[in-house]
Amino acid sequence: MNPLLKEIRHNPLLWLLAFVPGVLAAARLKPEAHTALFVLSVLAIVPLAALLSQATESVAAKTGDAAGGLLNATLGNLTELVIALAALRAGEYMLVKASIAGAIVTNTLFMLGASFLLGGLKHHVQEFNRAGARLQAGLLLLATIALLMPSAIAEADSASGPAVAQKLSLGLAVLLIVGYGLGLLFSLKTHREVFASAEHAEAGEAPWPIGLALATLAGVTVLVALVSEVFVESVQKAADAFGMTPAFVGFIVVALVGAAAEMAAAFSGARKNRLDLSVGIALGSASQIALFVAPVLVLLSYVIGPAPMDLHFWPGAVVMVFIATLTAAFITSGGRSAWFVGVLLLLVYAIFAMTLYLLPPERYAAGPERPPATADGSKWHP
Amino acid sequence: MNPLLKEIRHNPLLWLLAFVPGVLAAARLKPEAHTALFVLSVLAIVPLAALLSQATESVAAKTGDAAGGLLNATLGNLTELVIALAALRAGEYMLVKASIAGAIVTNTLFMLGASFLLGGLKHHVQEFNRAGARLQAGLLLLATIALLMPSAIAEADSASGPAVAQKLSLGLAVLLIVGYGLGLLFSLKTHREVFASAEHAEAGEAPWPIGLALATLAGVTVLVALVSEVFVESVQKAADAFGMTPAFVGFIVVALVGAAAEMAAAFSGARKNRLDLSVGIALGSASQIALFVAPVLVLLSYVIGPAPMDLHFWPGAVVMVFIATLTAAFITSGGRSAWFVGVLLLLVYAIFAMTLYLLPPERYAAGPERPPATADGSKWHP
Amino acid sequence: MNPLLKEIRHNPLLWLLAFVPGVLAAARLKPEAHTALFVLSVLAIVPLAALLSQATESVAAKTGDAAGGLLNATLGNLTELVIALAALRAGEYMLVKASIAGAIVTNTLFMLGASFLLGGLKHHVQEFNRAGARLQAGLLLLATIALLMPSAIAEADSASGPAVAQKLSLGLAVLLIVGYGLGLLFSLKTHREVFASAEHAEAGEAPWPIGLALATLAGVTVLVALVSEVFVESVQKAADAFGMTPAFVGFIVVALVGAAAEMAAAFSGARKNRLDLSVGIALGSASQIALFVAPVLVLLSYVIGPAPMDLHFWPGAVVMVFIATLTAAFITSGGRSAWFVGVLLLLVYAIFAMTLYLLPPERYAAGPERPPATADGSKWHP
Repeated sequence: MNPLLKEIRHNPLLWLLAFVPGVLAAARLKPEAHTALFVLSVLAIVPLAALLSQATESVAAKTGDAAGGLLNATLGNLTELVIALAALRAGEYMLVKASIAGAIVTNTLFMLGASFLLGGLKHHVQEFNRAGARLQAGLLLLATIALLMPSAIAEADSASGPAVAQKLSLGLAVLLIVGYGLGLLFSLKTHREVFASAEHAEAGEAPWPIGLALATLAGVTVLVALVSEVFVESVQKAADAFGMTPAFVGFIVVALVGAAAEMAAAFSGARKNRLDLSVGIALGSASQIALFVAPVLVLLSYVIGPAPMDLHFWPGAVVMVFIATLTAAFITSGGRSAWFVGVLLLLVYAIFAMTLYLLPPERYAAGPERPPATADGSKWHP
Repeated sequence: MNPLLKEIRHNPLLWLLAFVPGVLAAARLKPEAHTALFVLSVLAIVPLAALLSQATESVAAKTGDAAGGLLNATLGNLTELVIALAALRAGEYMLVKASIAGAIVTNTLFMLGASFLLGGLKHHVQEFNRAGARLQAGLLLLATIALLMPSAIAEADSASGPAVAQKLSLGLAVLLIVGYGLGLLFSLKTHREVFASAEHAEAGEAPWPIGLALATLAGVTVLVALVSEVFVESVQKAADAFGMTPAFVGFIVVALVGAAAEMAAAFSGARKNRLDLSVGIALGSASQIALFVAPVLVLLSYVIGPAPMDLHFWPGAVVMVFIATLTAAFITSGGRSAWFVGVLLLLVYAIFAMTLYLLPPERYAAGPERPPATADGSKWHP
Repeated sequence: MNPLLKEIRHNPLLWLLAFVPGVLAAARLKPEAHTALFVLSVLAIVPLAALLSQATESVAAKTGDAAGGLLNATLGNLTELVIALAALRAGEYMLVKASIAGAIVTNTLFMLGASFLLGGLKHHVQEFNRAGARLQAGLLLLATIALLMPSAIAEADSASGPAVAQKLSLGLAVLLIVGYGLGLLFSLKTHREVFASAEHAEAGEAPWPIGLALATLAGVTVLVALVSEVFVESVQKAADAFGMTPAFVGFIVVALVGAAAEMAAAFSGARKNRLDLSVGIALGSASQIALFVAPVLVLLSYVIGPAPMDLHFWPGAVVMVFIATLTAAFITSGGRSAWFVGVLLLLVYAIFAMTLYLLPPERYAAGPERPPATADGSKWHP
């Protein structure tokens, strides 16, 4: 266990691990202290996410190139997936969808923008591999178009709308996973040389021994799952206490918490003038959530959720995802960056955050009208 | 008639010509066998379209550069135009509009995507003339913006909406034809050197003698017109029999049938690493339908239709055309292609096709509410 | 006063200054002759705007690089600002908003398009600095996204909608001004070498003495303010007389009048093959109105307007601004131009103008429903 302890000693972020037993104990003793539980669970998830991503990378580094890339690509957003699964099991479909859309928007605008800004404050002009950014932007565009369709259909008051949206979502989920898989095949196998520099940059620190990495992966996933349950249960009540709208919590707070570990890596890459790494993490993470996490949640909802989940999002969320994708595609098309490029992305993010913060709750609720089938599912809107 | 017979002997696609007398005879003898007539008319239109496009090219090759390019550009979508005229005369305005929007979407997504995929499976990376793709994308963008306007105006329930949409459509039709004409002047005359490679690639097989080409052009056009009438009459009933929505038929089936011949040419160009040819056919065909065929149909509707036709499309169709244009502009802006680029375009097309297939019919009908003025015109929605 | 008189003698546009006393006298003597007053005020504003922009440039040239650039950037749209202030004081919020959106659309489509066309008719292919165009397009995109949000929120019938849109508009106004300021810092200070050629091109004629320039600036601003008041009072009645819709007047007529002087400079730059100058004026002016003039008007409305103004625009205006921005970003991304590029932009502008000209007035009125708080404010919609 030496490398793990060494890692913890050197990385102050991991000292937050002390909050993991804290939040689990508090959830037992004071289940009604929602605001405190919310804060504690956030503080506990952040270091767990950091450990998780490091363990994933170590396993990936051991298993060889293609398989490793695949592993990295599929487990990279494990934190988001586990949080979303906790919300799915609780029937909180509004929270699941808000966190999916929020993660896409937060990664493409905030993570990318802050990387450009932090990198640009240190380096006058930075360059990055356009091909990688274009591929991710193309995948995001595909996912955005897929999200548009069920929303467009279900917005009608027609009686058959929701049933059709459900069937369509199932088909789209399969289509997106196929697109994601072929995209991996393309970037990791048939045309890997085109995306070479991003690849090379990703290899960094010395990896852990495989046994430790696997054990950490398993153990931390369980811990994230336990803490996520507390988080999902407390987040709504805590939001009320802080005067935040549910839309703001789902879009901004959950997304920032879930992506904390990746952000640390993206920002440090930008400071070291390895912008390929930052762009790869930010856009790659966004496209993974859109083309892999979201469709997997739709499929899993048939097994573990109280009712099937569709891909019918609140129209405002679809618009924001669409704008974020367009903006990222436009910004990264040049392959060069300076500090103001980051400012532009962050200002777009600030516009969205401000709108969500001020959004009258009934507006947001008016979005995906169809309540989940079980009584449990209506918790999100009391 | 030697070259024509030789062509038929060597091109198995043309053996389908046997279905032409078949379908005309069947339409006389069994006018109520809609499904059989639909299948027969599809099988008959495909080889006729192939002959028509070859005859057009031969005439174009004879008449010299500028005039030939003009002829090729204006007669290239004769099949689509003749089918649409048959639907126009029958007052099937919904079918006309669906087939226009469907042809744009099918050409920009399916034809271009399949070309990229088929070419990319054989060649690692392919390059094409960006200038040509940009020009066509710009023209398509112009047409898409024009389609947005009447739909936006007519969606209101205001009493004057439809009348205004009609007046506006007339003005827009003239504007689009002017834009198309100036675009030809630009690409064939004043700046032809910029688009040179596309031009050069277009010249291919040895052309037919001019007399044969003209006779084929005239004769085949008449045959296409006759078969189209059977097709338009049977397509809706056949769709019901196959369980397909009217939207799916208009968008996907009619568009694929109408573009069959061009697709053969585009795919064969891609396999031969002459991607300029494929991109030119796919995007050129789409922009021709948007900026020439559609406006001409609006103008002709004043003469031959039961009532004037406007450019007010079902909002879903406008969204799909807009997304297809944006996607094509984004994808072709790099001037390079690999197999996955084709997959991306095809997946977007699959998303549209899936949505249209599942669309509840009343949703689609709810689009362009205004029924044509005559009783005849309401056939499309019984 | 020699340079001023010399300028007037050599510039036939300035002979129109004779209309300034004319319109002010006429407004006193015949306040009910709206059509005549409208025509006279247009004829008087055009030369005043030309003088204003020349005086600004002269002051800017004197005060050194960074400060001069700042001055030029903040006073460049003084005419538009003064006209809008006159409308704001009169409570004509619909006119203010229409003229803001119209100025953005007119500058990005008409001014840029006509520059490309006029330049392209003289020069075969023209090049310009892509970096400058990309920066302005990025700023415009930011402003467009900001305009989308309050409109999306306020369109709901929820009781709290307007209040929220007002709060949000205030926050967005601050955000946009911050973005504009940082953009100036970026292009004039930290990365000025990237935008160098545009900068250099801007210096042109010999500047006036600083005293004359400052006196002209002050005097002409007062005259513009006086004439603007006549213009704002007469424009609506005159529009009725000419059979023009209020939307057409606000979007097209006011925007063309306000930008007349900049257009003269942009067109002359394009003819002299200094396209950087033209692109800088057209897009820079548009982004300045979107990120500086509009937010400043929102802030000033708390002080001088009869009621606070929000950024809730008529949805059609938001769509047009969005399309104009997308089109300009697409068109300028190549950094090269020929005559047909200008035609494309002008055709998009013609589509908008035609739509606005035919728009049933009640449609437009149905946009920003919320009437200003005072009785005065309802003048625009009798």
